[in-house]
Amino acid sequence: MQFEFDVATRLVELGDHRYCGEIQSGWDINGNANGGYLLALLGRAMRTTAGRIDPISITAHYLAPGRTGPIAVETSIVKQGRQLVTVAGSICQGDREILRALGTFGDIAGSTSSFQYLTKQPPEVPPFAECLLRRPNQTESIVGLVERLDIALHPRDSAYFETGQRSGQAKMAGWFSFGDSRPSDTLSLLLAIDAFPPPVFNIDIPPGWVPTVELTAHIFGVPAPGPLRCQFVTEVAQHGYFQEDGEIWDSSGQLVAQSRQLALLPRG
Amino acid sequence: MQFEFDVATRLVELGDHRYCGEIQSGWDINGNANGGYLLALLGRAMRTTAGRIDPISITAHYLAPGRTGPIAVETSIVKQGRQLVTVAGSICQGDREILRALGTFGDIAGSTSSFQYLTKQPPEVPPFAECLLRRPNQTESIVGLVERLDIALHPRDSAYFETGQRSGQAKMAGWFSFGDSRPSDTLSLLLAIDAFPPPVFNIDIPPGWVPTVELTAHIFGVPAPGPLRCQFVTEVAQHGYFQEDGEIWDSSGQLVAQSRQLALLPRG
Repeated sequence: MQFEFDVATRLVELGDHRYCGEIQSGWDINGNANGGYLLALLGRAMRTTAGRIDPISITAHYLAPGRTGPIAVETSIVKQGRQLVTVAGSICQGDREILRALGTFGDIAGSTSSFQYLTKQPPEVPPFAECLLRRPNQTESIVGLVERLDIALHPRDSAYFETGQRSGQAKMAGWFSFGDSRPSDTLSLLLAIDAFPPPVFNIDIPPGWVPTVELTAHIFGVPAPGPLRCQFVTEVAQHGYFQEDGEIWDSSGQLVAQSRQLALLPRG
Repeated sequence: MQFEFDVATRLVELGDHRYCGEIQSGWDINGNANGGYLLALLGRAMRTTAGRIDPISITAHYLAPGRTGPIAVETSIVKQGRQLVTVAGSICQGDREILRALGTFGDIAGSTSSFQYLTKQPPEVPPFAECLLRRPNQTESIVGLVERLDIALHPRDSAYFETGQRSGQAKMAGWFSFGDSRPSDTLSLLLAIDAFPPPVFNIDIPPGWVPTVELTAHIFGVPAPGPLRCQFVTEVAQHGYFQEDGEIWDSSGQLVAQSRQLALLPRG
């Protein structure tokens, strides 16, 4: 059996670090391919070029919306190190570039370092069954992504989608897992970090689309089996921009990923 | 009069978005050019190519140490938008690429958005005069950078440099200003975000060099005149990597920059 995510990120190698693939339907938000899905697609090509399994640090700049249909992916090795390999990558659709990325890849499980320091706690989230599972009919817009994923929101964060009431705090927390039970790995973390509704939906921003300009993910561990505990927070919005920090924890209590993105406020 | 920082980031345009310049002495840490200085050098080239003044979001991957001497800088426009311009950039020294970057540039002061949201407070730092001004003779190593900059550390953070005692908390806070009183702008924020000692020096990591793999800066405002209040914190170190989050506040209480970098723990 093939999991949906693996089919949706399948690429054909053309040689010379070039690939072709397809943005599949059902990974979109109102017709625009989800930013995390696009990052995972490009990340899969880049890690193949790198010959290293884990995207230790990857940054993408979002240039244009991605639509269902064929894509061309180009990658190149920036630096071939012994431990780490840095790769540049790009997705084009038709004659338009939609995503440009830069990433450094390695092998987290192969690390021999035993030093650990952690000042954060996993976010407080009620058990999966007590959270609100996002489903297409619970929002007015058509969100393809929520048919593929089991995103269960903290009841407080879900208020906006249920009642139209905003919590007043730019935070979204909850659980992430695949609808078809695909296990998480360091590639699918790139999808997870952009799969939740923007936390600014919980504050009184002008209504509208909040396009991502840039997203950086740092992967700190290989996720253990089970749903992922996720939290996304916006700390600052000003001059037309806002940031959003994400963190993903696995079922063993390990912080497996951090993310930060910069996005545009609606022009209101 | 020319300020040192402006001289040290001077570039000659060669056409076709190529530049030549020089890594100047005195912006190093034990002979390796400071990562923030390199980012400012490349950022200056990239913003020239972009035709936009402010590095809204810039990410660099550090490939090799930079040494005093000539450099070649190549840039290219990834996307020319109406408001934002995305640019790729690279610094080569001899036949070796030392820095690769991707950034989106804009004009913060030209923003017409009045929406603001901020949940953070400026870090608690004693007045400049009560902080410990870093000077070359206060450390055992030769740090060229501290001759150019007035970095005044929170007394608690300074303990390691004074007495060899670590605070036990991976935090560094204090003030940043130029020794020759150059005003801060959005370009020099790229220097400031990597000018402090790593906060992990305050915890019991194995001794050694902590090379930056990747650094991302987000610029949220044009700094008002006066010293900058800065704080750098590491929240997670594991599997041989650690992250470091920075924030810079200006004298008017405005958050002007956030940064996050990923670096390597000493192999110890």
